[in-house]
Order: sequence, then structure tokens, then C-alpha cells
Amino acid sequence: MRLLGVDPGLRFTGWGVVDMDGNRLRHVANGVVKSGTGELATRLVRLHGGLEQVIAEFRPDSAAVEETFVNRDGQSTLKLGQARGVALLVPALAGIPVSEYAANAVKKSVVGYGHADKDQVGHMISVLLPGADVASPDAADALAVAICHAHHIGTQAVYEAAQ
Amino acid sequence: MRLLGVDPGLRFTGWGVVDMDGNRLRHVANGVVKSGTGELATRLVRLHGGLEQVIAEFRPDSAAVEETFVNRDGQSTLKLGQARGVALLVPALAGIPVSEYAANAVKKSVVGYGHADKDQVGHMISVLLPGADVASPDAADALAVAICHAHHIGTQAVYEAAQ
Repeated sequence: MRLLGVDPGLRFTGWGVVDMDGNRLRHVANGVVKSGTGELATRLVRLHGGLEQVIAEFRPDSAAVEETFVNRDGQSTLKLGQARGVALLVPALAGIPVSEYAANAVKKSVVGYGHADKDQVGHMISVLLPGADVASPDAADALAVAICHAHHIGTQAVYEAAQ
Repeated sequence: MRLLGVDPGLRFTGWGVVDMDGNRLRHVANGVVKSGTGELATRLVRLHGGLEQVIAEFRPDSAAVEETFVNRDGQSTLKLGQARGVALLVPALAGIPVSEYAANAVKKSVVGYGHADKDQVGHMISVLLPGADVASPDAADALAVAICHAHHIGTQAVYEAAQ
């Protein structure tokens, strides 16, 4: 089963693809879609195109998007929301189920600790996905989302098997 | 010239289409896209599909989206942002230029007063677009966005002609 993780952001949207075989994970690819400069609508079209390309190339079976951290700055939240809308839309339009995980759940799943920082996440990515050449911290976060999704799916499968 | 105005919202996204001929405006159509219930990604797919249908049916030359009011409730801002991302994306993907106007500018353009309430906007829509059967307050707001866009384009044309 191939999983896509996305860490949305208006400037940089990280993405990561992992294969899950039982409880083994394998890194497939990761990267960052940059929206560049210009009008907001044009930037969202670039995010859309970039994510569409990732999905066309890697054909994930399932996707997960990090739940945006809502801070006190309304303008930042709005920007993030707009990017996140596109990040949720693109896989859903391709018929891929899209899950959402809170940032704390993602960190806990990868580092074992909900308040881990970017360095700790980056380190655990290199442990959990040996050999992965990670493009940037946003791509590392996206791989962490994919790993969190894999753990969740794995746990669900165990529960379902037990019923 | 045919203009599409959009008032984005996660539950209800209003839309309105007007034709602009010199400084005359004519109502073409208006309505609301409802995202329904279910997962966020599915709801965004419904918004996408509804707006895509409006564009396919009415083929606007230019679009405008209301700038979301950023309030103190981060969760509401995030929801609005996600819907707004889709509202900006869909016309842009269809190759239609997309402008943005602040809510105050829209109200000022239609009512002459930036802090007008929904009733005043609704009333002025019936004056400026006689015979328009307005589907809901969100659709009225979307028509107001289209009117604001028309005024802006008209003013631009006057400036350009004077240069």
C-alpha cells in the first residue's frame, strides 16, 4: 500500500511517499511544491499542479494531510487554510481517500513525543526511512505525516482482525 | 463582459454572474454551492464541482472573490480559508483572471458605505440588478462582489482611456 503525506503551506507544501508492507515501511520519494510569487490564485494553481504531478507519478492508494496549527495571527491562518484547501482537494479529486492528523499526533507517531521539534522529526525520519534523501524540513514533515498514516492504518487493521 | 462574483464559505459558497456593457449591468444568474456533510476533503470536492459547473454553464470572462474577514476564531478562519482556496483555484484553473476585494470595499461599492449590513446589501442588489431573483444572502453577497468588480474594471478603463 502506497501512502502520500502532505504538509501544506502557501509558500512551500512538503510531500512524501512511502510504501507500507505489513508493518514495514519503505521510502519512495519526497519533495516540496513551491507556489512562487504573484497573485494568490496563480500560486494556488501552482500548488494544485505540483500535487497533481506527484499523484500522477507515484499513484498513492491513500493520502494524509497534516492538520494546520491554528495560531493567533488570522492572516497566517487564512493563508495556510487556502493552501490546505488545495492540498485536501487534489488527492480527493483523484479519488484517493484523504485522512487528517493533528501535528501533535504526527510528531508523537514518529518521535514518541507530541512537542518534538523539526530536528527531532528529521532525525527520526532518517532512522525510520533509512536512505531517504530528504529535500527539506517540509518534506520531512510530510514523510512524518505518511508514517503517522501508516501507523494508523496498521493499528486499524489489527483492530479489525481482532473483531 | 461577463463577471463572476464569489462569496466563499465552507458550508455555503455564494456565486453571482452579471453582464457588464459599458456602465450598464445586467443580472445573469446567482446561486449557492452547498458542501453538505461528511469529510472535509469530500466537502471541498463538492465546492470544486459546483463552481466548475457554474463556470462551464456561464463562461465568465473574469472572476472576483471576496477577501475573507479574519476574525479571532482561528478554527473558523481556517475553514473559510480552505473554502476560499478552492474558490480562487477553480476559475484560475479555467484560465479566468481572478481578482480579490475586501468585504468593506464590496459593501462600499454597492451601498456606498463599508459597514453596511446584509439587509442593505440585499436591498441595493434589487435596485442595481432589477428583476434578479436572489437565492440567499450568500448569493446576494456574491452579486455584490461581481458589481464591485464591474465598478473596478469600469474605473480602470476610464483611467486607461485618459492616459
